[in-house]
Amino acid sequence: MPKISEERKAERREQILAGARSCFAEYGYEGATVARLEQAIGLSRGAIFNYFASKEELFVELAVEDAQRISHLWVNQGLPAVVGEVLELDPAWLAVYLELVRRVRTDPDFKRRIDERQAEVVPVNRARIEEAQRTGEFRDDVDPRDIGRFVNLVLNGLALVRASGDELPSADLVLRLLDGAVGGRNGRSA
Amino acid sequence: MPKISEERKAERREQILAGARSCFAEYGYEGATVARLEQAIGLSRGAIFNYFASKEELFVELAVEDAQRISHLWVNQGLPAVVGEVLELDPAWLAVYLELVRRVRTDPDFKRRIDERQAEVVPVNRARIEEAQRTGEFRDDVDPRDIGRFVNLVLNGLALVRASGDELPSADLVLRLLDGAVGGRNGRSA
Repeated sequence: MPKISEERKAERREQILAGARSCFAEYGYEGATVARLEQAIGLSRGAIFNYFASKEELFVELAVEDAQRISHLWVNQGLPAVVGEVLELDPAWLAVYLELVRRVRTDPDFKRRIDERQAEVVPVNRARIEEAQRTGEFRDDVDPRDIGRFVNLVLNGLALVRASGDELPSADLVLRLLDGAVGGRNGRSA
Repeated sequence: MPKISEERKAERREQILAGARSCFAEYGYEGATVARLEQAIGLSRGAIFNYFASKEELFVELAVEDAQRISHLWVNQGLPAVVGEVLELDPAWLAVYLELVRRVRTDPDFKRRIDERQAEVVPVNRARIEEAQRTGEFRDDVDPRDIGRFVNLVLNGLALVRASGDELPSADLVLRLLDGAVGGRNGRSA
């Protein structure tokens, strides 16, 4: 293999991930064969698997990208930005996650690999919740983990309803009712 | 075909649906071949498809059973019973729904058939929400459709997190925060 610069490598990596994302969205995870991945990415299987060990690794990396982008939005711009982002996600891409839910539950090795990578954002999100409890944005009479789990539940619900193409509540309504659930005016102990 | 009594027909129908449910849960929708359905149900394909026109019809009928059972719980026992029920659903069966989300969104005919059958419970659920707004169980400053959409969002989120095998918040916590979101003390106009 010819030597290529770090910058070129990073570009290639991005090219591969973007192509894989659209290929998974178009054909589904099972339907995204290696031949289709080659075509969507514009590189040979040799070049693709030189960067990512397998189709699974491609998916895990894309899921981590999503988790990091959403965590970043949440930390820097708060819940309205996160809800807005989830409501705009490509339904076809969301369906790829759903297709893999059975696999995540039944293949402990696959689950471990996803959890390990997703673990990077857990302490960041946790710190953001605790800060929001201190400033009164969130109620402080509920364990921060439970706040996180409930918000996660609502975001998962939004993603599932969007993926199904069913009618969604407006972002404003979601934020208003979510504020009723976890907002600071509920349970300030001070 | 020999003539069989109505009672016997109803029993057969139940036998077919129960077998199909466990076959879909075990192998996934795509993996539930006609041969596997025959084995799980204990009847020949001829007998099965005499009751339901296709594998699709079997799935639609099972989804309608779920929607009716949950609607019945909701009307007669309220939200705690519904949340409890969703938290107990078989994750393997929930994964079958997720597997079909892409199909629901991309196949208008399939979506129409599901929507038509699910439509049976919509007015019942709507009437229950309006009653809960009158009695003060739910806030009355939000459109009942929006209350329904938000509760539906949370239930979808619960189902998705359960299907993934991820950590779930407790039923008590879900009900407490849901009460903060849609409960009557928020927005009584009276």
